[in-house]
Amino acid sequence: MAEGRLTAGAIARLVGGDLVGDPNIPIAGAASLDEAGPGDITFATGPSHRAALARTHAAAVFLPPRLRDASEGPQTRILVQDPRAAMLTVLAGLESPAPPPWGVHPTARLGQRTRWEGRIAVGPGAVVGTDVRFGRDCRVGPGAVIGDGAALGDACIVEAHALLASATTLGSRTRVKTGARVGMDGFAWVPEAHGHRRVPHRGPCRVGSDVEIGANATVDRGSLGATEIGDGTKIDNLVHIAHNVRIGERCVIMAQVGVAGTTTIGDDVQIGGQAGLAGQLRVGARARLAAQSGVIGDVPSAATVSGYPARDHRTVLRQTAALARLTPLLPTLERMTRDHADRD
Amino acid sequence: MAEGRLTAGAIARLVGGDLVGDPNIPIAGAASLDEAGPGDITFATGPSHRAALARTHAAAVFLPPRLRDASEGPQTRILVQDPRAAMLTVLAGLESPAPPPWGVHPTARLGQRTRWEGRIAVGPGAVVGTDVRFGRDCRVGPGAVIGDGAALGDACIVEAHALLASATTLGSRTRVKTGARVGMDGFAWVPEAHGHRRVPHRGPCRVGSDVEIGANATVDRGSLGATEIGDGTKIDNLVHIAHNVRIGERCVIMAQVGVAGTTTIGDDVQIGGQAGLAGQLRVGARARLAAQSGVIGDVPSAATVSGYPARDHRTVLRQTAALARLTPLLPTLERMTRDHADRD
Amino acid sequence: MAEGRLTAGAIARLVGGDLVGDPNIPIAGAASLDEAGPGDITFATGPSHRAALARTHAAAVFLPPRLRDASEGPQTRILVQDPRAAMLTVLAGLESPAPPPWGVHPTARLGQRTRWEGRIAVGPGAVVGTDVRFGRDCRVGPGAVIGDGAALGDACIVEAHALLASATTLGSRTRVKTGARVGMDGFAWVPEAHGHRRVPHRGPCRVGSDVEIGANATVDRGSLGATEIGDGTKIDNLVHIAHNVRIGERCVIMAQVGVAGTTTIGDDVQIGGQAGLAGQLRVGARARLAAQSGVIGDVPSAATVSGYPARDHRTVLRQTAALARLTPLLPTLERMTRDHADRD
Repeated sequence: MAEGRLTAGAIARLVGGDLVGDPNIPIAGAASLDEAGPGDITFATGPSHRAALARTHAAAVFLPPRLRDASEGPQTRILVQDPRAAMLTVLAGLESPAPPPWGVHPTARLGQRTRWEGRIAVGPGAVVGTDVRFGRDCRVGPGAVIGDGAALGDACIVEAHALLASATTLGSRTRVKTGARVGMDGFAWVPEAHGHRRVPHRGPCRVGSDVEIGANATVDRGSLGATEIGDGTKIDNLVHIAHNVRIGERCVIMAQVGVAGTTTIGDDVQIGGQAGLAGQLRVGARARLAAQSGVIGDVPSAATVSGYPARDHRTVLRQTAALARLTPLLPTLERMTRDHADRD
Repeated sequence: MAEGRLTAGAIARLVGGDLVGDPNIPIAGAASLDEAGPGDITFATGPSHRAALARTHAAAVFLPPRLRDASEGPQTRILVQDPRAAMLTVLAGLESPAPPPWGVHPTARLGQRTRWEGRIAVGPGAVVGTDVRFGRDCRVGPGAVIGDGAALGDACIVEAHALLASATTLGSRTRVKTGARVGMDGFAWVPEAHGHRRVPHRGPCRVGSDVEIGANATVDRGSLGATEIGDGTKIDNLVHIAHNVRIGERCVIMAQVGVAGTTTIGDDVQIGGQAGLAGQLRVGARARLAAQSGVIGDVPSAATVSGYPARDHRTVLRQTAALARLTPLLPTLERMTRDHADRD
Repeated sequence: MAEGRLTAGAIARLVGGDLVGDPNIPIAGAASLDEAGPGDITFATGPSHRAALARTHAAAVFLPPRLRDASEGPQTRILVQDPRAAMLTVLAGLESPAPPPWGVHPTARLGQRTRWEGRIAVGPGAVVGTDVRFGRDCRVGPGAVIGDGAALGDACIVEAHALLASATTLGSRTRVKTGARVGMDGFAWVPEAHGHRRVPHRGPCRVGSDVEIGANATVDRGSLGATEIGDGTKIDNLVHIAHNVRIGERCVIMAQVGVAGTTTIGDDVQIGGQAGLAGQLRVGARARLAAQSGVIGDVPSAATVSGYPARDHRTVLRQTAALARLTPLLPTLERMTRDHADRD
């Protein structure tokens, strides 16, 4: 599947594993047990994989030491404590389709006083404003737009068609995926006699280091004060983060989540897909919000909530189960309450 | 509304219907009963449309044979078994604003060894990588980006600003609408001591023939193994399909649906808007998932589910109705259980 | 935070307030009490802000007259009836990073017979079709695409990468934010023996004046008849509006809402984030749909609904509370119904 020029022996050295079999077998790619072809390496973690091992076409396999002598599977084996981690390491090594060359494409446009350190890659048709600062080794994809005064650290990636609005800042090694929009005016209106008046947005959007913002996601800038996304936080596709939201470090926010204005989220919070958070809330560190939960009140640290309105997850399960059991009792309960009323 | 150069007689021949009235009446467009103007053709399917027939301004109308002599409506009539289908045929005929001309716009950029059969149209500012293969009669819109090694069949359309990442494949007659992103790295992370490590994505994204992917939708590539979308499946705007999802043939997936990683969906499944599917699930063929349903377990073939957690739709309706009836009984039930406890 | 060249005296005149203190103090920006720096103006509305007033670093503050002599806070004070409104006025004054210059960028492409009144700004790489009409002072961002025959009023803004499909119309002062897609074919299919046949979309998409369409939002054109968005309606990021939807005036539609085909929404309706509306519905004027509500039936004027299926909000609250109280009673209720059955 993936391509490269590796041998089983080189891979064993790369991951620090023990090789059983021929070190010179060439490995062209890496794939799951069922999808691996005759040039691939694959992995298995336990006895439950024995049937799949028996039918795999892979040339070599990562195994835990206790499966060293399994009768099924490729005879070229690399024994490691964590076959899955070894597989990720190999995949990361293979995962290097040549990136686009360094340099500014002749059709890209850079504004005045924009500068960078070391190398930069700016793709065809990208538009970078004035006074933009890049660290080292940043990459800007085709057609991406970066507004005046934005500042990026080292090794940031702004993919095709992504947009960083004026005065947005990124730390280092942060990746803004294709079509994501970061730092635009937020959605805040003051009702007036005939319609609505826009609340001006002057606050910045500050994105930390090692952050990922997913494809077609949107992150608004602050109105008064900043929108902030902490170091190491990962945001999936089509997520919406409103103005003045503050997200801590190392959070994981799944696809299509929405966070309304001025909500604050602590460190290490996990939010399942399509969950929604109302505005002005506080979510404590290490909280877990289930997929599709509708959060309309504060969430304590380390709590697990689900449902709408979101509440303690075990409570939700208990109430859902109770309703299922109450439903068939309804006719009897109605009769009993009538009898009871008659008696009074 | 729509423009063209047709007569009532030509339209009758086109749809194989019987004309009543003047074959030379010019038809300039097609519209619903209430919106049709004096140059348009419209349609009605039954007696319930009589009031609207009486007030329409249309010049001609498709009618089922039994309404041939209805007193209301335009006197130029085309009698057909299925007036709605006839209308679609006419609309499809009218629906031909001249497409952009064939050829590669001088501002588009094509990589080395990219090739196509017959004709191709590549719009201004589009960026096509190296080793991309197109079949016949493909169209690439303004600013679209197609990564290295992508392969497209015949008559595919990649609209403005859409992106096909490296190694994505499309069958024939597949349309990727404006702003859709197909084949990017997925969202999968392994927790580490200080943050998260990306799971590499080396698997392809394989999209079948006659597929539609909606505006601003996102479809991630596989990690190990492929993401696959079967022939004839239609995906609406702002849908998210995660890594390693496999979707069967002829599914219809409404706007803003989200499908998490490695879930498998059978053929002919229908998914209502904003429904969410957790990862690692199996949804059987012909299942129907209601709008906004939150699917966290497998769904059998041909089942209809709704709610969160999604379960049999009739059960949901029954439980919702039971809760509505239990709520006013609550005070009495509380009193009764107290009495009951006292008695024990 | 924000920059400008203002003095406290000039600001007092601008907002019609009474100045207490030095009129010559320079004001460089505006920020909330807690974020203001020593060159900023801030605001407080009542006694509850006293603690924050005591610690703010701001140089000046808008206060209501009754706080004129508060001991806390900056001594340079501007007394106004509505400090929040005064703050918005100042922010709007400060909010003027120089817009891009008027004129058509040499890399933009304009089709034949496209014309405008007075001034226009068309950014790099934008693609404007044939027969497009602009009013005065319109702005088209980098890479934006406007289809043949579109018509825009005065002072419209089509931001970077936004797309107006063919025959879309905008009123005046309407803003289509970055990545939004307006006027594409909708998602409507007729089942056939082997798959689905597209319902042609010939209807226009008509967007009124003073409308905002959020980043990466999608609005489909009509099939038969139009999709319409009324004057003054504001639509947030990642919203989906399907074909033939009609939305009234001055509505506020929060992020990630989805509205299915042919639904009609009255004036002054407010829709919370992630709410979903099924097709073919009617929502009366001034209705309020809570965040995440799932609307599958008509909503009367001025009603407030929530939940799935969406119903009167107080009913939802009552039923949710009832279920919470019924759940611990379940064992007793089950025992009682058994006893009751035994007795019968």
